[in-house]
Order: sequence, then structure tokens, then C-alpha cells
Amino acid sequence: MATEAAPPFVIGHKVSFSKTISADDIRKTAEASGDTNPLHLDDAYAAKTRFKQRIAHGVLTSGVISAALGVNLPGPNYTTIFLSQSLQFQRPVAVGDTLTANLEVTAVDRRRLTLKTDCLNQNGETVATGTADVLLDPYPRE
Amino acid sequence: MATEAAPPFVIGHKVSFSKTISADDIRKTAEASGDTNPLHLDDAYAAKTRFKQRIAHGVLTSGVISAALGVNLPGPNYTTIFLSQSLQFQRPVAVGDTLTANLEVTAVDRRRLTLKTDCLNQNGETVATGTADVLLDPYPRE
Repeated sequence: MATEAAPPFVIGHKVSFSKTISADDIRKTAEASGDTNPLHLDDAYAAKTRFKQRIAHGVLTSGVISAALGVNLPGPNYTTIFLSQSLQFQRPVAVGDTLTANLEVTAVDRRRLTLKTDCLNQNGETVATGTADVLLDPYPRE
Repeated sequence: MATEAAPPFVIGHKVSFSKTISADDIRKTAEASGDTNPLHLDDAYAAKTRFKQRIAHGVLTSGVISAALGVNLPGPNYTTIFLSQSLQFQRPVAVGDTLTANLEVTAVDRRRLTLKTDCLNQNGETVATGTADVLLDPYPRE
């Protein structure tokens, strides 16, 4: 998705990032994290849960927010350092769902930003809400 | 890591999960999430940041906590549903670091648990602190 050109150190500054979640993304998340909970990996297991099908790890939703913060927020002269995150998961994410993280700067303290981080699916339903604190470090740092 | 046999619905119940973070884990996290921030992927770029080397995505730390919640917490008769997470990142994680997520139940409301989630590296240094709320759903659900 497009990188925003505007300087990020302004309350109200917005960035977004979208990604369609594949079965391969879920497998990679399981391998990278060690979270092999069969709710994410095993169709037969997942069929007997409240979701009736495999769902993505919550951290994959968190990852799409991280992508917006790490790729689309900083521009070429800064790098994003993740300080803290708070996330409430509202809806499950299935294979093939397209997640869009919509971020908006809500507070600025020098180079430290607080952002509202909402994540929607392709139907416009809220998958997760939350906040993040990041530090934008000048790049390159001599 | 070993699954705990004790029932999890008790304040003070503890589970842990450890994982050594490889360059491949970081690559998979970037591919799965879309977070291709070169701080995580590009040695030459990362050398010019405050960290002087590539570091893991914060969501990979979150993922090791998720593994403890999803794999080691529930036992065979429940499945873990992630409701919310709060995480403060304290230290960077480099390739080859071994993360250990130490979780402890701090509140129980029927099948809903709140846990303290601390994550340490192989030197015993705190990488992240936080909390998580999960629902343990009976499995299989008829």
C-alpha cells in the first residue's frame, strides 16, 4: 500500500496497511512463534471449536498493525521503534480475509507518538481495536 | 516445552514457553505480516540504527507469549481464545536470542483468565512485560 508523504508528527496523521491472510501466512506465523495451537492449523480440530473453521493467530492481526507502523508510518528519514501495544480482539480472522489496519496519531511527544490502531476485515467489520506507542528514530543515525 | 498438567483456573498457575529466534523466523514474520521494515531484514540498513544490527519484530515476542497461551496453557480439554493483550517492549531481540515467556494467572472469572506475561532473554534480561486476557473454551464444543 502507498506510503504517506506527510510528516507523521501531527495529531490526526493517518496511515493504513492492507493484507490478505493466506493459509501460508498462518503456517509461517506458527513456525516463527512456536504457537502451533491446532485451532490455527488443523481443519478437523477447528471444526469442533466455536469458530467451526481455522482462524488466524491474534498476533497476525497485530502484525498487520506492525506493518503499518514499520513500513508506512516513518518515511525514509526515520525508523520505527515499537515501544508498547494494547490490542482487543473483537472478531476471528479466517483464511482469505483481507485485513486493513487504520492508524491515527492521537498524541505527539517530541519523536514519540501514540496511535489509535483499528483493524477491519473486507466487510468493514472491526477485527481489533487498540493503541500503540512508537519512537521514530532519525535514520541514518550517525 | 512441557505442557503443565494442573488445571489453569487458579490464581498463581504458571506456564512457560521458550524459543530461540532465528533469521528464518524473522523472515517468516515479515512475510506473514507484511512488516518488511529493513530494521528487521537488512544488515546494512540496521547497522545505521541505534541497534547496530537487525532485530526481531516486536510481534515475534508477542508470538512467543501467544505460544505459551495457545500451546501450554489450555491442556487437552480446552482451547485458548485470545481476547486482549497489552505489551511493553523493554529490550531488542537479536538473531540467536532465546526468549522465554513466563505467564502467571492473576485473575479468574469463570473461564476467563487474566495473566501477567513476562518475556526474558537467555541472559535473564526482561525483553517485554505485559498482560493478556484469554477465554478457555471447552473442547470439543458440541
